[in-house]
Amino acid sequence: MTRRITVGAAQLGAIQKSDSRKVAVERMLALMAEGHRRGVELIVFPELALTTFFPRHYAERIEEMDHWFETAMPSNETAPLFEAARRYRMGFHLGYAELTTEADETGTVRPRRFNTAILVNPDGRIILKYRKVHLPGHAEFDPNRRVQHLEKRYFEVGNLGFPVVRSPMGRVEGGINMGLLICNDRRWPEAWRVLGLQSVELVMLGYNTPSINQDAKGWEAHHLRVFHSHLSVQAGCYQNATWGVAVAKAGVEDGAELFGHSIIVNPQGEIVAMADSWEDQLVTYDCDLEMCRLGRTTIFNFAAHRRPEHYQRIVSQVGAVEPPMV
Amino acid sequence: MTRRITVGAAQLGAIQKSDSRKVAVERMLALMAEGHRRGVELIVFPELALTTFFPRHYAERIEEMDHWFETAMPSNETAPLFEAARRYRMGFHLGYAELTTEADETGTVRPRRFNTAILVNPDGRIILKYRKVHLPGHAEFDPNRRVQHLEKRYFEVGNLGFPVVRSPMGRVEGGINMGLLICNDRRWPEAWRVLGLQSVELVMLGYNTPSINQDAKGWEAHHLRVFHSHLSVQAGCYQNATWGVAVAKAGVEDGAELFGHSIIVNPQGEIVAMADSWEDQLVTYDCDLEMCRLGRTTIFNFAAHRRPEHYQRIVSQVGAVEPPMV
Repeated sequence: MTRRITVGAAQLGAIQKSDSRKVAVERMLALMAEGHRRGVELIVFPELALTTFFPRHYAERIEEMDHWFETAMPSNETAPLFEAARRYRMGFHLGYAELTTEADETGTVRPRRFNTAILVNPDGRIILKYRKVHLPGHAEFDPNRRVQHLEKRYFEVGNLGFPVVRSPMGRVEGGINMGLLICNDRRWPEAWRVLGLQSVELVMLGYNTPSINQDAKGWEAHHLRVFHSHLSVQAGCYQNATWGVAVAKAGVEDGAELFGHSIIVNPQGEIVAMADSWEDQLVTYDCDLEMCRLGRTTIFNFAAHRRPEHYQRIVSQVGAVEPPMV
Repeated sequence: MTRRITVGAAQLGAIQKSDSRKVAVERMLALMAEGHRRGVELIVFPELALTTFFPRHYAERIEEMDHWFETAMPSNETAPLFEAARRYRMGFHLGYAELTTEADETGTVRPRRFNTAILVNPDGRIILKYRKVHLPGHAEFDPNRRVQHLEKRYFEVGNLGFPVVRSPMGRVEGGINMGLLICNDRRWPEAWRVLGLQSVELVMLGYNTPSINQDAKGWEAHHLRVFHSHLSVQAGCYQNATWGVAVAKAGVEDGAELFGHSIIVNPQGEIVAMADSWEDQLVTYDCDLEMCRLGRTTIFNFAAHRRPEHYQRIVSQVGAVEPPMV
């Protein structure tokens, strides 16, 4: 019984503000067809893959942005992706903005907006949904920024935790343990560890990350942006003995540059495939899930080595405190 | 008021089983003298710096190994390090095996053994002590291993948590927030985060890591050993916006090779200095602690971005669980 799966990191080039969902879906369908040609069994699309990265634009009333959100999945526009999944027997991962009407923590039913990712199996069934927990950026218009990053304005913090499911995929009939992160989540080792504690074997994550850190102010060289992204994914994979597929939207979108460099990373933390363009591009790798075993039975055998009694600050504190002077 | 400090990563070459503490201390004193010549204000020695890495040797009775442990610090043998600290106005970090008689969790006073590190200020005063939490290896003789790794036999899990203190050091009169890790701790993002949550600015850690992973069994290329060490330190520094000084014992010790490659890492996760020998070697860097500010006020502003309500598994679970099948 094989434990190998051929995954595709389906990087998307820029999607401009004027591009319709139909255009984006057609580009994704082309990548799925290309994936089929190259034996891909699971294809991973980026965060907010159906539209431009709209949190760079400000709206005083949040409702003015609702046209960027999906109220159904599948919808008329996205149904062809689900049909292609069935036709090719190919699972897919898709990131999108989700507008839903559901109860909040107080029980009030109201419109709620999340930065969401789903995993769809080769039957076209949604088997996993995740809503982004680590929203970067800011909630109010920032006059000091040339480009806004208003994720904290338009999205609520995800309320589904970091779920992992086991499900058959491709040739792996016995199932793969799969989990999702979105963009900025990848920099947070807590998120990776919560997946690792559920025996994750394959983490999929989409991102839209600007090439320029507008907060850097001379303290961070521009070229470190890609390094930081890769460093975080590589460490997350190594320290949790999991495969990772990190897929970008890339290129100059609405005048703002996204850095691309999508990667597939093995449980040793090695980059085994990488996109080298700012365009729609598919990179593939045939992943041996048995590689997860070494880490999780030896150096990262959590049951043998973790010491949660010394980790309490991770949940008892949110922000950092100052240490005592000695 | 400057926030710069010149640190020295004082790698030690092999210390053989037959080498006395006097030999090791003399080598460290030579490195302190060299550090003085090069303006070092804080020098970092490795884990278990006074002896060979004795957990590679088996003893049926733990007490047979007590001659590898320190029962006083300073002692007659280590006092010259404290004297040199005062003479040069140089802080130092030292790792050693600690044998103490103190109460355990049940209140029983008994001999206890820890893998310990201390930080000594330029007055020769111990200002911070840490006892290793993440003990690697095994507790019983393993006939399948050519070289044993018996840390779980000879040491108890550290009982001091991951403390951080603020103290003046070198030119930094207002104090530096300093924390300690030991060897295998560096692979555990929980340990780094607990330090980060105490606003750490400079993490010191010593290590003794074999060049060969005897558990690898064809799943891990030998050259990845150094990569994994560096990856963990770089990610820990970047994700907690701290400087890191990771210092090895290196070379062929008692017939077993330790990989060296000591590094100094900045808060961007960049390696800014690295040892390139398997010998006693001092690498230095003048660290600007103001570099910690960018990360902790923007992308790693913990108070703004962390979501502990979704991190509960980190403390509620020790080992990994299996996910649901869908």
